Order: sequence, then structure tokens, then C-alpha cells
Amino acid sequence: MTVKISHTDAIQAFFKEAAGFGNDNGKPRLKSIILRVLQDSAKLIEDLDISEDEFWKAVDYLNRLGGRSEAGLLVAGLGIEHFLDLLHDVKDQQAGLTGGTPRTIEGPLYVAGAPIFEGEARMDDGSEDGVGTVLFLEGRVFDAHGKPVPGATVDLWQANTKGTYSFFDPGQSEYNLRRRIMTDSEGRYRARSIVPSGYGCDPQGPTQECLDQLGRHGQRPAHVHFFISAPGQRHLTTQINLSGEKYLWDDFAYATRDGLVGEVVFREDGARGVPGRYAEMSFDFQLQQAVDLAAEQRSHRPRALQD
Amino acid sequence: MTVKISHTDAIQAFFKEAAGFGNDNGKPRLKSIILRVLQDSAKLIEDLDISEDEFWKAVDYLNRLGGRSEAGLLVAGLGIEHFLDLLHDVKDQQAGLTGGTPRTIEGPLYVAGAPIFEGEARMDDGSEDGVGTVLFLEGRVFDAHGKPVPGATVDLWQANTKGTYSFFDPGQSEYNLRRRIMTDSEGRYRARSIVPSGYGCDPQGPTQECLDQLGRHGQRPAHVHFFISAPGQRHLTTQINLSGEKYLWDDFAYATRDGLVGEVVFREDGARGVPGRYAEMSFDFQLQQAVDLAAEQRSHRPRALQD
Repeated sequence: MTVKISHTDAIQAFFKEAAGFGNDNGKPRLKSIILRVLQDSAKLIEDLDISEDEFWKAVDYLNRLGGRSEAGLLVAGLGIEHFLDLLHDVKDQQAGLTGGTPRTIEGPLYVAGAPIFEGEARMDDGSEDGVGTVLFLEGRVFDAHGKPVPGATVDLWQANTKGTYSFFDPGQSEYNLRRRIMTDSEGRYRARSIVPSGYGCDPQGPTQECLDQLGRHGQRPAHVHFFISAPGQRHLTTQINLSGEKYLWDDFAYATRDGLVGEVVFREDGARGVPGRYAEMSFDFQLQQAVDLAAEQRSHRPRALQD
Repeated sequence: MTVKISHTDAIQAFFKEAAGFGNDNGKPRLKSIILRVLQDSAKLIEDLDISEDEFWKAVDYLNRLGGRSEAGLLVAGLGIEHFLDLLHDVKDQQAGLTGGTPRTIEGPLYVAGAPIFEGEARMDDGSEDGVGTVLFLEGRVFDAHGKPVPGATVDLWQANTKGTYSFFDPGQSEYNLRRRIMTDSEGRYRARSIVPSGYGCDPQGPTQECLDQLGRHGQRPAHVHFFISAPGQRHLTTQINLSGEKYLWDDFAYATRDGLVGEVVFREDGARGVPGRYAEMSFDFQLQQAVDLAAEQRSHRPRALQD
């Protein structure tokens, strides 16, 4: 027997009171959002006959999720971050904003304030010399008309050979594998890095706990994250996912997209002055024109550190 | 212009995949719940045209909420815990389970394992002697037929004169103001305690931050929490809220209910052997008969410590 009361006038009035509609203070926008959250939550509880035990397990889960700062990881793993990209794409299409390199999810592991270099940079601190495979990553940034964009900021970050990120992995040096490279007069960026390993959720963390119970893995293919920005150009948040990776099209965060696979070529010819095997990956980006100043900026998502 | 895509087959299929419907592992019940959460979240994002900034602010809020273990406080403050009581009441009515002392919210501050006493107990550790007003709290536990229940466990917890709870307030001694009293042969419990102060949300915490933005306060009237249980009797979770309190009927957690107001009487007659002013409060409880063994137990909500 499913009992429902959330549609009644009494409960709706109660939720309005709880959401702050009974007073003239606070933020009207937040009141509307909270009211909807209350209405949806109550309806979900009724429709699925959520037990007390289930409800409190969920509340405890939220405490543990936030206690490990994994809310950003969970929304990626449950596909909500990818859904936002798909929704954004359709909004763009309807507004006639098409073309250029596709966007994809930022993920929760960006850290603001990485060192800035002109044209080229070495990304790793050398601590994995002899362990990691050296990667030469380069490409150009173009505008909507195919003209190179000099002075664009290519803000890129990636994991090490263990699949972990500096700042979040205290074992890595500050800003290891995080750089901002300003494109040269030809719109070119060049990075000497190491081939990243795929990222995996912490097996002990609450995100993996949820994925386990959904019968899902928490693995990503090796990839490199990018913020690309330049005056007059629309900000781009994207990633290159490396070809040949086991999880390339089975990414727990659904970030791999057509047009965002980077072809990795392995060589062993000494041509780059690197002994033994090394890798090359070339990837160009095309930006859209910014319709206004706000479009040049990334979202105001709260991030680790601030510029 | 509001763009909507969440109703499309492609997005619905995507959410099913993310919720684990594409595999035979995991827990089917959780898959159904997560699918609904994804569908509702996407629809909310579309209907209210949630911006990227708003979305990421919410994700950051969840991290901060869990980081302070305040998810249980927020669901009380937003009225969801009270809604669960109201829903439970209607389910009981439809099942013919009526009568007795009303239930009300547990709140997030119970700690299992409090010291056990026969018939009577002093609840406070004496650290507020001369500061707090001594409170003599007593009453009886009856069954559905009005017969006293000897040997019932009255598990009660309350705040000190600053409105804070032991365990969560590291300044208090272990289990201060937390006791389990077994009723005597007449079904009576007697506690010597101090008059609690009303509870207020941490002004720096995420729950109060949300309430502020809803234009709401985060205060509760002074109250005493109870779990009451006995063999053959239905477990009762309730509270006595003290008469005369400013927030008695303006409780941010909506816990005060008809039938749950305790009349506090202040005396200064030396009759109890206490110098100066002291307080008395008498409160009887009536339990329902348990329909099965499970009904004798409280919910399996994760709590601080375990018995």
C-alpha cells in the first residue's frame, strides 16, 4: 500500500514555509529551488516507498560523501556532469553557436594558479624519470575562421603514472603536471610531459561504494584536461582522451566524446633526444567566437585554490 | 528560452546506463532509486534553468555539508524529517495503528550506549551546578490499555545550559545528559537533570548558511529527546518540548507537536532538598502494541557509536 500526502494543500503549504516563502528575507531564487527539491524529494519518497532505514542511509551517505569531498566525483560518475554538457550543446545549437572543438566535463581535480610558460613547458617534475614514458604533446589553437590564436592560455592538467593528481595526491610536488602555456605567434603550444595513467576512483571512497552497488566500475581512460581561453574567444573546457586505452569508450565519467580522442604514437628513434621509447600526441583546438565578455570566462565553479 | 532534452529516449537510455541497468550486478533497488534521482535532477535543472554556476555551487555545498556532518541537521531544518513523521502517521492510520504518545523527529544528536539506571538517574555531571536550574523530570510509561509498563527502557538525551550536546560538544564529559532509565514496577522513571537551553544551529555551519538564505532562523525550543522501548511494545521516538519557550511553536526543525509540550513548573520551596529555584516537569508516555518484533526496534539509522 503506497500512501501519498505530499500533494495535499497542507503539505505543500508546509514545504513553502520550510523553503522560506513565509518571510520576505533571503534569496527568492534559492527559495524556489529548495521548494522544488522538497517537493521532488517527498514525491520520490512516496513513489518508491522509501523506508526510514533507506532514508537515513542516504543522509549518512551524504555526510560521508562530503566528508571526503567527493560530491564532484559522484556527479561525474552518475553522468550528471555529462548531461550538463549535452544540454549545453543543444542550447548552443538553438542559439546558432556551433563548430569548434567539443566541450567535455571538467571533473573535480583542477587547481587554479599553475605556473605560466610562453609557448612551451615541461609539465612533470622529473620524479618519474625512467618510470613514466615521455610524452611530447603539441598542437595549435585556432579561431572560428581557422586563424591561429597567438597568446591563448592553454591551461592543462593530467595524472601521473599512478593515475593521481598533484595537490590531491600529497605525494606529488606542487603543481606537478599542471601548467599554463601561452600559445606562440603561430597559435602553437608545446608540452613535454609523461604519458598519464587512467584515473580510478578511490576504492575506499563513497563514489566507488555507490558505483559498486550499481554494478559499475570507476575507471577512466588516460586523458589530459584543458581550459583554453583567449580575448574575444569563447572559453573551452575539454579533454583529450588517449587512443588505445581500455576504458576509452567505457569511461565511468562519460567524458570521452567524438572529436576528443588523441592519437598517441610511440617511437624509439632517438629523434627527440630521449633515450628509448617515447610518445607523441598532436592535438589542435578550434574555439568559437565569444558573444560577450562572460563567454570568455570559465564557470564560477568553486575550485581548489583561486587565481 | 528553456531547452529540454531529459525526456528524450537518448537521455533516458543514458541515465539507465549510468544507474547500472546495463549490467546484472549490484543492487536492483538502488538502481531504481538512482535512476529516479537522475531523472528528477535533470528535470529540475531544465525546468528551473539551473545555471552552471548554480549547479557547482550546490555540489560545493554538499561537500561542505558533509564535511561538517550536517546532512542530518539540514533534513531536519528543511522539514523533510517532519514530513517523514507525517507520512508515517497516515500510514499508521490506514493500518489502524492509532493512539498513544505522538512520535516526533529524532534529530542527528543521539549517541548510543548511555549509562543504564534502574528507576531513577541523575543526568548531569554537576559541572553546571549553580549555573543550571535543577530539573526534576518524571513520569510513567503505559501500554495501549493504560497499564503501566515496568522494565521499559527510557533512553533520553538533552542539551546543557548552552544548548549543546555531549559527544558533539567536546567540552562536556562523556554521556553528560544522556541516560537510559529502566522503569520501576509502576512503570515510572525519575530523572534529576538541569533545564536545557534551546538548541541553535552552528552560526558558521552550512545548515545555518542555507537557512539564512531562506530568511529563516535555526533555533529550537528547549526540549528533551526520548527513545522508549519495551518487549511487546512499539518503539517510540519522541521529544518533550518545554512550555513557555520562545521558539516552542516556531521550531526550525518542526519537532513540536500537539501532545508533546511539557509543562515546566518552577518552585522555590526547598521541598526537593535543592537550595533556591528549581523546576519540575511531569510527562507520561503511552506506547502502542508492537505488531511484530521489528516494531519494537528503532530504525537502523546510522548513529554516533553503536550499542
